[in-house]
Amino acid sequence: MDLKLVRQRYESELYDKIIPFWEEHCVDREFGGYFTSLDRDGSVYDTEKYMWMQWRIVYMFAKFAAANNGPARWIDIARKGYDFLTAHGKSGDGSYYFALNRQGVPSVAPYNIFSDCFAAMGAAAMYKATGEAKYRAEADSAMRNYIRRMDDPKGRWEKTLSGRPARLSHGHFMMLANLAFEMRDCLGSCEYDSAAEEAVRTVTERFWNPEMRILFENVNPEGEPFDLDSCEGRMINPGHGLESMWFMLQHAERNADPVLIAKAADIIKGILAFGTDQEYGGIYYFMDALRKPHLELQWDMKLWWPHCEALIACLFAARLTKDPFFLEKFAELDNWTWTHFKDPEYPEWFAYLNRRGEVTHTLKGGKWKTFFHLPRMLFTCAAQLKKMEND
Amino acid sequence: MDLKLVRQRYESELYDKIIPFWEEHCVDREFGGYFTSLDRDGSVYDTEKYMWMQWRIVYMFAKFAAANNGPARWIDIARKGYDFLTAHGKSGDGSYYFALNRQGVPSVAPYNIFSDCFAAMGAAAMYKATGEAKYRAEADSAMRNYIRRMDDPKGRWEKTLSGRPARLSHGHFMMLANLAFEMRDCLGSCEYDSAAEEAVRTVTERFWNPEMRILFENVNPEGEPFDLDSCEGRMINPGHGLESMWFMLQHAERNADPVLIAKAADIIKGILAFGTDQEYGGIYYFMDALRKPHLELQWDMKLWWPHCEALIACLFAARLTKDPFFLEKFAELDNWTWTHFKDPEYPEWFAYLNRRGEVTHTLKGGKWKTFFHLPRMLFTCAAQLKKMEND
Repeated sequence: MDLKLVRQRYESELYDKIIPFWEEHCVDREFGGYFTSLDRDGSVYDTEKYMWMQWRIVYMFAKFAAANNGPARWIDIARKGYDFLTAHGKSGDGSYYFALNRQGVPSVAPYNIFSDCFAAMGAAAMYKATGEAKYRAEADSAMRNYIRRMDDPKGRWEKTLSGRPARLSHGHFMMLANLAFEMRDCLGSCEYDSAAEEAVRTVTERFWNPEMRILFENVNPEGEPFDLDSCEGRMINPGHGLESMWFMLQHAERNADPVLIAKAADIIKGILAFGTDQEYGGIYYFMDALRKPHLELQWDMKLWWPHCEALIACLFAARLTKDPFFLEKFAELDNWTWTHFKDPEYPEWFAYLNRRGEVTHTLKGGKWKTFFHLPRMLFTCAAQLKKMEND
Repeated sequence: MDLKLVRQRYESELYDKIIPFWEEHCVDREFGGYFTSLDRDGSVYDTEKYMWMQWRIVYMFAKFAAANNGPARWIDIARKGYDFLTAHGKSGDGSYYFALNRQGVPSVAPYNIFSDCFAAMGAAAMYKATGEAKYRAEADSAMRNYIRRMDDPKGRWEKTLSGRPARLSHGHFMMLANLAFEMRDCLGSCEYDSAAEEAVRTVTERFWNPEMRILFENVNPEGEPFDLDSCEGRMINPGHGLESMWFMLQHAERNADPVLIAKAADIIKGILAFGTDQEYGGIYYFMDALRKPHLELQWDMKLWWPHCEALIACLFAARLTKDPFFLEKFAELDNWTWTHFKDPEYPEWFAYLNRRGEVTHTLKGGKWKTFFHLPRMLFTCAAQLKKMEND
């Protein structure tokens, strides 16, 4: 594998295809904010402004602006989105709504703390790109809100009652680890370091089942951690697990922690062994730890983002462990991912394939896909490859 | 097509396979209520008691007990479920919770009015089977609760805010029409007849777009009814539409309304033309009115219930219109449905297939499949066929 050629392919895809697609199609020049429901050719098929999707665009354009000394229009796109979202997106208690309509009127209540999570990331990246204090204040405010809400993330919209056991959710902790890393990176702040340590420990010690070699999504806070008697307890999300593990490796590298590097790399091996579709290739969306029927109809579909996260996880682990397994796995996944998700006719990649790898939706962006997983993957993989070339 | 042979096949499937499967596996003899998360062989893979699923079992066993002078154990199964659900299932304002745990402790809040809908149907069927006044009172109470909640169906769990346009939801009106029919049939009550008439008119006049020949799921209450600019406005659910149309035909037959018969039959033709997968056969789960990308990942899957509803709709229309189109369509759908959904090795049918018709889940029951659509279809189709034999 010629690492330099691979890196150039990733960089070319990012800077020649993906960024231009979003620059051209996502900006709502009339009302502010972004269109994310973009069809194959970039045409808009819905104008709802989902907060996760919006803030991730702010984050990504700000990140690229800062990292590459990019053209001024990138930070301008990010800034205009930021202005729209902070002007319209905050509810009474400071939490961000889940969605606004095109004009900026709130359309879905702030029932989900990941709106705050991505607001914190977006604002922090704006601070790193510009050095303006207001962005730092917003990042801290959204980050504190995320932490405050972790104990009761859905607030008054919580539908779960006492008949269902309380659970720890892997997603909340993995995102806390990632957020804290970003805050330190963008703000230079150590305020969240202890939260990060706690999150890393929780993810790697409580959600990983070393006997089954499976990373769980929901565990019991007390007693036996793994509930194998319910669909909720057996729920597995391989893409989430792989994303989580490269977050762990980021922390491990910064803290020069070989034990954590070895553990995260081992967990990646476990997730890939369990989550790979041996028949058609690619990684499943959802699984059941005991391979019982899954609650979700679309469990066996192949989504762009778990494949993006798998590629990053493999390269991170390859670089930090030098174990040849990871570069082999990267090559295999790189082939499957680029062959199946990249649209041969238009720029940007497909989001959703069936188990066989056939395209089921023509969309390039929507309620759950925006300018985020794919460009972050291309950028992060290129950075890993660059370091490996220099090693 | 030999109608008698077809009828015997449907009856044999119902009485020799489907009813025995649920009799054997669904009853929770320890805590009361039912198991509905049943794997291929009937083994339990989750014990959550979802209220729609629970009440539908009460309804179906009571219905069969009444209709067939069936064995005493059928009404006994229904009665024990009813006792469990009324003892544990009601929240403070009389609305039914969405789910209980195995022991009967509420696990999911009463955020959904279809829990009340299926409670009303179950209690009404119990009254018809037994004549006991308490069941009638419960049916009326749940029915009134359903009607009361129609204006604000999610109550305090509503997440939609003013930035999203208010919509009329087809599901609420089609179920009101069905519920009112059942109340009249089971209770002999005319109390809900005017609500039924209003529901029938709303479904057939407001949700049907005669130019596009598509039945919509969400329409605007004022002004132009069809919103073609949003995913929500363009959302189509062919199985829902077909189910709705045989509810309309039930009303039309009882009221000897030839105009409604012709209209519902015409709508069935429109739905089948739009909703049929021309490449792989079967009926899509969700569609977009303009064939733009669908919000739901599983839009192209083939589910057992739309096929059950399509079979009933075709036979109802065939009998009431004598148009040979419907019997031809029935034969075609009968073949596709029995070939793809019936499990060749174990009793009961599969629920979920991919677009090609390949089984994606081994479950026979779950959060959304219970002893309802399939047995109702087999029973209703056999009854239609019997009448057609005698015509």
